[in-house]
Amino acid sequence: MSKTPAYLINGEFERGMTPLDRGLNYGDGVFRTFRVVEGLPVDWPLHYQKLVADCSAIGIVCPSAEVLMEDIQRLFTMHDTAVSKIIVTRGEGERGYAPPAVTSPNRIVFKSAMPNYPDRYHTEGVALYLCQTALSHQPLLAGIKHLNRLENVLARSEWRDPSYADGLMLDLKGYVIECISANLFARYGQELWTPSLDQCGVAGVTRQKVINLASSIGLTVRDKNLFMNELLNADEVVMVNSLIGAWQVRSVTSKCWPRGLLANELREVLSQ
Amino acid sequence: MSKTPAYLINGEFERGMTPLDRGLNYGDGVFRTFRVVEGLPVDWPLHYQKLVADCSAIGIVCPSAEVLMEDIQRLFTMHDTAVSKIIVTRGEGERGYAPPAVTSPNRIVFKSAMPNYPDRYHTEGVALYLCQTALSHQPLLAGIKHLNRLENVLARSEWRDPSYADGLMLDLKGYVIECISANLFARYGQELWTPSLDQCGVAGVTRQKVINLASSIGLTVRDKNLFMNELLNADEVVMVNSLIGAWQVRSVTSKCWPRGLLANELREVLSQ
Repeated sequence: MSKTPAYLINGEFERGMTPLDRGLNYGDGVFRTFRVVEGLPVDWPLHYQKLVADCSAIGIVCPSAEVLMEDIQRLFTMHDTAVSKIIVTRGEGERGYAPPAVTSPNRIVFKSAMPNYPDRYHTEGVALYLCQTALSHQPLLAGIKHLNRLENVLARSEWRDPSYADGLMLDLKGYVIECISANLFARYGQELWTPSLDQCGVAGVTRQKVINLASSIGLTVRDKNLFMNELLNADEVVMVNSLIGAWQVRSVTSKCWPRGLLANELREVLSQ
Repeated sequence: MSKTPAYLINGEFERGMTPLDRGLNYGDGVFRTFRVVEGLPVDWPLHYQKLVADCSAIGIVCPSAEVLMEDIQRLFTMHDTAVSKIIVTRGEGERGYAPPAVTSPNRIVFKSAMPNYPDRYHTEGVALYLCQTALSHQPLLAGIKHLNRLENVLARSEWRDPSYADGLMLDLKGYVIECISANLFARYGQELWTPSLDQCGVAGVTRQKVINLASSIGLTVRDKNLFMNELLNADEVVMVNSLIGAWQVRSVTSKCWPRGLLANELREVLSQ
């Protein structure tokens, strides 16, 4: 597959989109990223459900599942194992913040190659960079995967050392929230804690799957405010998202964890 | 002039731009809005200086003033009195938050018609809607006119009643910050207070001009945290931006102010 992503804009192989799109002007839209295996999107019902919920939270009418699936089938062959990203924006607008009374959302479906994650991220786990960029509190937008992602961009700009697989982000109160591109779980015995995302952060589909599946591997999940010192006292810490599945976090700042079993167990139940 | 905005993308009359642009994907860019009178941008040195400062704050190299001015001169004739908006994004990127090591910023220069503000906004002042959407605190982005503007979009979606000229926005702590599309000044005798913008809000060029010019009309400016009850106790409240100049705020919630002189005085000194 070519390294440059391919894309469809509103179902067409267009070269470009209008700069009047409100996604560009205001970040007025939402997105999803997920794996496509042999032409089929993985966990599509969950991703579509989350896309609809995120659109609805900011008052955008989400394109139908059929329309999006048609785009995916035009863009990916049955031999493609790759990454898809879907952006849905409120559509074109005139100057000014007021959403037009009648809007026609724009959708872009992208295809790009699976990132080349080192095998050892799966087998041995990863090191996280502790980001200085703190997430602000905005309960109206918390949990939503919207296009206002400058905080993530600033956080990801803090380091270039490739030995860090991702960055750990706290909020302005010092609570642990997430990785820049993944959600977090911390295990304490048979309890699995995950940061509350009612003030900031993105509530990912894989996080929800882990919450739903935890009892099947004997764990009880708690969604709670989590301070850094609590995270550091966990028996194991695992990061999850739709591309990586689950990786163990082996170190952050001076803290190191021994190799654990949770990431493997989660990858197994997630892939079933 | 046609109602639909015209635009140049990187100096070309292109129909569209790449959906790989990081402005669309992450709101990774900044913008300016200003008047163009008979083909000439008003307060161009101030707007360009602010564009450079905002780009620099998020690590984007701003296109040169010459390049942007050339775009403006191609887009506007010497007969055009209109609005220009400039967007500068970090440019095209691959999937993922990490800014590419080498980026080429994208610039879009728009031309659109001046809004048809009712004359009475200038002569009699305006009513503001009190928005429920509260601004979050993010000191790293405060003051910058960046493309992450979902809070403004949500705030502007709260009302449709055209008798409100703009919305008043508070932050999550209850401080008065700004209008959705303008900055605020409150006069108490010879003191002019303007909300501090070190946690949120956009520090506009016209706000800075008023701060610089206030002493010429016998006023002392204080940049401070401003509670709602303090705002309501002001002798006069005025909103300012580059398109409107200055309008008196005549009412918000149940509070009404008598007609005052400040908005007129400010419009006069601003236009000199």
